[in-house]
Amino acid sequence: MSSTADQMLGNEASRSERQALVMRYATVRSTSERLCAPLLAEDCCMQTMADVSPPKWHLAHVSWFFETFLLKPYLSGYREFDSHFAVLFNSYYEGAGAMHPRAQRGFMSRPPLEQVYRYRQHIDEHMALLMETVTEDPWREVAFRVILGLHHEQQHQELLLTDIKHIFASQPLRPVYCDAGPEASSPTGVLAWHEYSGGIHEIGHHGAGFCYDNETPRHRVYLEDFQLASRPITNGEYLEFMGDDAYRRPELWLAEGWRTVRERRWQAPLYWECCDGRWHYMTLSGMRAVNEYEPVCHVSYYEADAYARWAGKRLPSEAEWEMGAQDVAVGGNLQESGRYHPAPARGTGVVQLYGDVWEWTQSPYVAYPGFRPLAGTLGEYNGKFMCNQIVLRGGSCATPADHIRASYRNFFYPADRWQFSGIRLADECG
Amino acid sequence: MSSTADQMLGNEASRSERQALVMRYATVRSTSERLCAPLLAEDCCMQTMADVSPPKWHLAHVSWFFETFLLKPYLSGYREFDSHFAVLFNSYYEGAGAMHPRAQRGFMSRPPLEQVYRYRQHIDEHMALLMETVTEDPWREVAFRVILGLHHEQQHQELLLTDIKHIFASQPLRPVYCDAGPEASSPTGVLAWHEYSGGIHEIGHHGAGFCYDNETPRHRVYLEDFQLASRPITNGEYLEFMGDDAYRRPELWLAEGWRTVRERRWQAPLYWECCDGRWHYMTLSGMRAVNEYEPVCHVSYYEADAYARWAGKRLPSEAEWEMGAQDVAVGGNLQESGRYHPAPARGTGVVQLYGDVWEWTQSPYVAYPGFRPLAGTLGEYNGKFMCNQIVLRGGSCATPADHIRASYRNFFYPADRWQFSGIRLADECG
Amino acid sequence: MSSTADQMLGNEASRSERQALVMRYATVRSTSERLCAPLLAEDCCMQTMADVSPPKWHLAHVSWFFETFLLKPYLSGYREFDSHFAVLFNSYYEGAGAMHPRAQRGFMSRPPLEQVYRYRQHIDEHMALLMETVTEDPWREVAFRVILGLHHEQQHQELLLTDIKHIFASQPLRPVYCDAGPEASSPTGVLAWHEYSGGIHEIGHHGAGFCYDNETPRHRVYLEDFQLASRPITNGEYLEFMGDDAYRRPELWLAEGWRTVRERRWQAPLYWECCDGRWHYMTLSGMRAVNEYEPVCHVSYYEADAYARWAGKRLPSEAEWEMGAQDVAVGGNLQESGRYHPAPARGTGVVQLYGDVWEWTQSPYVAYPGFRPLAGTLGEYNGKFMCNQIVLRGGSCATPADHIRASYRNFFYPADRWQFSGIRLADECG
Amino acid sequence: MSSTADQMLGNEASRSERQALVMRYATVRSTSERLCAPLLAEDCCMQTMADVSPPKWHLAHVSWFFETFLLKPYLSGYREFDSHFAVLFNSYYEGAGAMHPRAQRGFMSRPPLEQVYRYRQHIDEHMALLMETVTEDPWREVAFRVILGLHHEQQHQELLLTDIKHIFASQPLRPVYCDAGPEASSPTGVLAWHEYSGGIHEIGHHGAGFCYDNETPRHRVYLEDFQLASRPITNGEYLEFMGDDAYRRPELWLAEGWRTVRERRWQAPLYWECCDGRWHYMTLSGMRAVNEYEPVCHVSYYEADAYARWAGKRLPSEAEWEMGAQDVAVGGNLQESGRYHPAPARGTGVVQLYGDVWEWTQSPYVAYPGFRPLAGTLGEYNGKFMCNQIVLRGGSCATPADHIRASYRNFFYPADRWQFSGIRLADECG
Repeated sequence: MSSTADQMLGNEASRSERQALVMRYATVRSTSERLCAPLLAEDCCMQTMADVSPPKWHLAHVSWFFETFLLKPYLSGYREFDSHFAVLFNSYYEGAGAMHPRAQRGFMSRPPLEQVYRYRQHIDEHMALLMETVTEDPWREVAFRVILGLHHEQQHQELLLTDIKHIFASQPLRPVYCDAGPEASSPTGVLAWHEYSGGIHEIGHHGAGFCYDNETPRHRVYLEDFQLASRPITNGEYLEFMGDDAYRRPELWLAEGWRTVRERRWQAPLYWECCDGRWHYMTLSGMRAVNEYEPVCHVSYYEADAYARWAGKRLPSEAEWEMGAQDVAVGGNLQESGRYHPAPARGTGVVQLYGDVWEWTQSPYVAYPGFRPLAGTLGEYNGKFMCNQIVLRGGSCATPADHIRASYRNFFYPADRWQFSGIRLADECG
Repeated sequence: MSSTADQMLGNEASRSERQALVMRYATVRSTSERLCAPLLAEDCCMQTMADVSPPKWHLAHVSWFFETFLLKPYLSGYREFDSHFAVLFNSYYEGAGAMHPRAQRGFMSRPPLEQVYRYRQHIDEHMALLMETVTEDPWREVAFRVILGLHHEQQHQELLLTDIKHIFASQPLRPVYCDAGPEASSPTGVLAWHEYSGGIHEIGHHGAGFCYDNETPRHRVYLEDFQLASRPITNGEYLEFMGDDAYRRPELWLAEGWRTVRERRWQAPLYWECCDGRWHYMTLSGMRAVNEYEPVCHVSYYEADAYARWAGKRLPSEAEWEMGAQDVAVGGNLQESGRYHPAPARGTGVVQLYGDVWEWTQSPYVAYPGFRPLAGTLGEYNGKFMCNQIVLRGGSCATPADHIRASYRNFFYPADRWQFSGIRLADECG
Repeated sequence: MSSTADQMLGNEASRSERQALVMRYATVRSTSERLCAPLLAEDCCMQTMADVSPPKWHLAHVSWFFETFLLKPYLSGYREFDSHFAVLFNSYYEGAGAMHPRAQRGFMSRPPLEQVYRYRQHIDEHMALLMETVTEDPWREVAFRVILGLHHEQQHQELLLTDIKHIFASQPLRPVYCDAGPEASSPTGVLAWHEYSGGIHEIGHHGAGFCYDNETPRHRVYLEDFQLASRPITNGEYLEFMGDDAYRRPELWLAEGWRTVRERRWQAPLYWECCDGRWHYMTLSGMRAVNEYEPVCHVSYYEADAYARWAGKRLPSEAEWEMGAQDVAVGGNLQESGRYHPAPARGTGVVQLYGDVWEWTQSPYVAYPGFRPLAGTLGEYNGKFMCNQIVLRGGSCATPADHIRASYRNFFYPADRWQFSGIRLADECG
Repeated sequence: MSSTADQMLGNEASRSERQALVMRYATVRSTSERLCAPLLAEDCCMQTMADVSPPKWHLAHVSWFFETFLLKPYLSGYREFDSHFAVLFNSYYEGAGAMHPRAQRGFMSRPPLEQVYRYRQHIDEHMALLMETVTEDPWREVAFRVILGLHHEQQHQELLLTDIKHIFASQPLRPVYCDAGPEASSPTGVLAWHEYSGGIHEIGHHGAGFCYDNETPRHRVYLEDFQLASRPITNGEYLEFMGDDAYRRPELWLAEGWRTVRERRWQAPLYWECCDGRWHYMTLSGMRAVNEYEPVCHVSYYEADAYARWAGKRLPSEAEWEMGAQDVAVGGNLQESGRYHPAPARGTGVVQLYGDVWEWTQSPYVAYPGFRPLAGTLGEYNGKFMCNQIVLRGGSCATPADHIRASYRNFFYPADRWQFSGIRLADECG
């Protein structure tokens, strides 16, 4: 196993005897299916914009990952479920051969959803066999790849939720995916500021536990003293920005942001609609009036940056964010809450670093000094996207709790809005 | 009722007492559902190019037509099935209000197929009530509109088949829609020529039976003597054209045709693929080797025109075609054959005028002299498309037999290829 | 010489001894240069939309025509001026080899205008030599090609004027090309109607004089009785149409017209601008207030068709137009007037058939029955464009008087507006 | 004056008494005109791609800068030369009002080049008056803006050269802009590596002399030990990369780079053409065979990054580059050499840091910690572009010597290739 893979794996393999890994495998896999349970087969084949993949495709692709990187190389005598799937469900791995064009994922009525579930079952049976029978020699590499595959599937669980939201929001009938429960209506506290000391710090993954290659190597950075806001910006605060004519004032925007605002005629975050003079938004529980206490969500980097400029502040760098989060235990409104929607901030101190909304940083997504991608085709997982994207941190209401950590680097294009993405401000000190 | 509608209706209303109409209604409506029976719900929501509509949308739209133009204006106390459907399933009738964007028909996972079938049942029940209870006074207009609605639905049955073919051909798994039966393998006869006398002739609809407004008024035209080929061009003949490098020789093409050939990199008719040096094509019965005796199909007007130029002939005008067909009884390889694929020509004389393949004429689709569209919103059915399209004649293997006639004018854009469209040559005399 | 060429030539060759042809050559060639005299070299290299060609390119291309079709094949020992020009100034003749991409004609700063004038001089000297020295045997073909080349150049003179207008209208400084003289301000007479008898008529070129291949062969058509309006529609009349909200009412438009109106946000004819509540337009004499007595100009076929529908009339077919014009002597506000702008109608009877504005017919541009294009590469002149375009008749204020005739068929795409194109209505009788 | 402006100005104002500034003004302004002297007026209005501006536009825009930011606010009684120019020659300053669309700069035949030169003269006369007459109070701000305006003009001098190169390369006639002189033909030395110590360093502008706001504030960064290559990669070395099939191997490229390679069908750097099996490129001295000893030039960031990956190295960060350059005196093959083309490396040590080719770093262009843009509209100069671009360092053969410095941050999009951009490798130590 490559040393990068080794670093990414941490001590997960050692503590997880095979049995533990088998159980975790079962849990993660069944969660994906549970998330799709409320969907019709017809929902599962929709691709409502190029960024969205049909839920059926997600379900198959994560299985393809196990088939391609585990069953084919490590399970002797393995026969693939369907030879077309190697192409159909390859996302972007050039090293794994040809791939179905991304923009045509929504044209796949076949294989039908049922067949995809049979594919999953086929994979699960053979994965069980592999985990049971593989000898000690390749075990450590196998275990690493299983864990990577499970994190991969968890990452797609979040995409499943954001893609389902986009699919449902594209339906004029505006279906309801889940019951949101009662809505919080008590005010959020005033935005406060917390200071952090600069100097030489270390960021990047360390210690026990899995990480992606893009979180390595841990390395030194120099920071000046800085402050972080106690919580993300709320819808109420964002409405003030909108009310100050922000979507019509070029001086608040990056040049590309301003171009995007005009070309796409943005006037509010994604999913917002003005009905009878009042803002509403689509949620996974259907249309709702905008709740001013919740964190603003579904904003692009351009909007986050413009808000910060309007507020006289800035976005944090990813190093600053990681300093702020590294001693905070993971918790909050994550996927397990089942709400799939941000909730108003509660409590004191710096809250909501994890969950609710991914927080745009000011940092372009680039390699850490000394970065080495995983060897072979798995090296395409993260490294080749290190251009033109921006780092987001902290996870959202759609992220599984055991998938997020202080060093986790998510990344999207600055115009992307369909993720649960929000705004936390930062500032200099003094 | 407008006089145009009167002319279009012919004596259908008089001969069809209500009961007959009720029975015909049932037959046509159930045929649409039978055509969709082999499909999965997932197939039914695909839109694999902008021209294609999802089968589910076709099933709903033809019902919307009855709801909009019959139930709402004529059945007192009628309550619509779902108020969203007025917009969702309006195709292009500006006079009927807003419409869902055409290019987003494939984003509708909702209403699900089941709900569309419930919608059809709702419409059918209320149509039965209307046909039973409407008084004599509006009956003639109602009867006309029912008949128009049934012809409309038959037109969409053909589109259902051509759209299903496109959807299935877009699936890398290449599913089979129907069993084609054994393939004809005996040679087609030599292409012969039949002369027709020129002079002043009349074209356009006349006599008993329904027609569309665009087939009226019957009017005089002057023609020179001309000849028609005895049958459409076969795949074998088209392969000679291809083998003569036709797709790389600009002198054979209209300027726009040549541009299209280069931009879309056409090298053969739609659905053709070269596998191991031999041409195959996708059919509704799956992939098959090209049968050289069948009429060539899925060619654009540009290809039909280029073939004719290469052959030293020309395409017929629509008046010439109609002269050739007006004394020929409708019959042949039409929808009822259940093959949904062209068959080799058999018999003597001028054959296959009806069925097998629509025949591109050289005539742009324009109004006949004195043309008046139907009054009101129904006038949008045909008239507003009289620009930039080309007339095709004679129906295809996907056309219902009682939907086609000598005066029937179909029309598509010159680059369109997904209909069952082929080539019959014409020539001057002497 | 091909018989089509023979028919196109008429008796021009016989009446024009060589000397006459030499003089005509000189006249036409110098006219092109006179039209460009008011331009700067910088104006001459502009391509302000894909349809526009830089004036410099026009000046060179018409010379390339003589070089390619006369000097190279007929003047022995001829050496081309610059070997690059064969490609640079080929417009669309596939048979003449490669061509510079049309959309990049505006990127040619080289050859500079001066060099293009030297090229013209080179061509003129060698053309003089050819016309003087060619033997009798090829003379008739040479004479035909010279005459064709001169008509070709005259056609480009009109394009020069319409392209210059587009170039100047694209300049925020709105330069003036020519002095328009005093403006007519007395009212135009009321629109009257003139009846014509139907029956079998002949259209297409006949008699003495040159014509293009697309005007042949003369052939019989059957027409019903019809009426033509006494003059084109005026700006004043068109303003009523606009004032009746026509650009916002889909029921007035062809489907493609309506799509074009919305996509391009048309609200008035090309070159119209509303300043302080009053409509103005750009003319070759600069910005002017709209004169309500002048024929409306720079409208597309879609607008002409919508206007006719709004007025309860229709556009004439090209056969009807030709019947109306065939006994009318060519004359009126043509290029020679030097105004380059339509003038109000004067006089009684059917006026302004020639000059002022090209009149959109309802006829798609297709081949006449029995049409044979010129042999060889010259056959690309007209024939390959017979698709998706609409015939216009009668010439405009930019057409040379000896270039227009009753049988002349001009053709443009239905959305095109930068030509001097207007509207004459027609109607049924009785 | 804002403190950022103060920092940017450095001590330029103090050392430059008015007279010195007047002389520098004259020198810079006349250089722009000298660079355009070899051009025809027709060359000066070309915009051969959206990124290119017509030379005429550059000449006017830099004058507009003085008019807008100096003459209008500071010269009392100043009357603008032409009121249209405020819009026509505004590049991207939203705060300065409307602007002519960038993509239509090539449609401006007017004002003609002559008029632009009169505009320049008008500006120069009034700038002389301003610099002579302005009182002491605003002097420091005026002086700062004059210096900024001169650096702005120098920046456009480089763009003039790169745009002229693109314009000339778009001419099939391939004109020659300047005489390149004899070509160097002796080999370049072997690529060597030089180590630099890490730790906390400072980057950003300091000391005397002008800088842009984006070079401030000087701030601390932490670096690991690193190495820089002794010289840029040569054409010979790049040909090895090409010969190793690099443009067809996805594993060497960033995902966006690979997409770009395929979509634009890149096979070599910009301006390279293969003639008879040998690579040539367009230079400002015309077409030449590729010289293997010169630095490779006109490569995108994607190509630089792929080359580095192929070579097993990486690109330097901008901080590393600045560490390498901060003690090196500016000099080398800069604009003043008049070659306008990179030259082979000569000498020992780390050479060619300045001049020859801009060196792509691995650093996205973002704000330095604590960055404050200039106040007011001048703040749009740099700050709003801090997204999706990559920093380049060191200047090129088109950069004026007194315009470049160690802290200078140039920035372009990763796909841009028309600047003189090349590759210097970096590596970890040990």
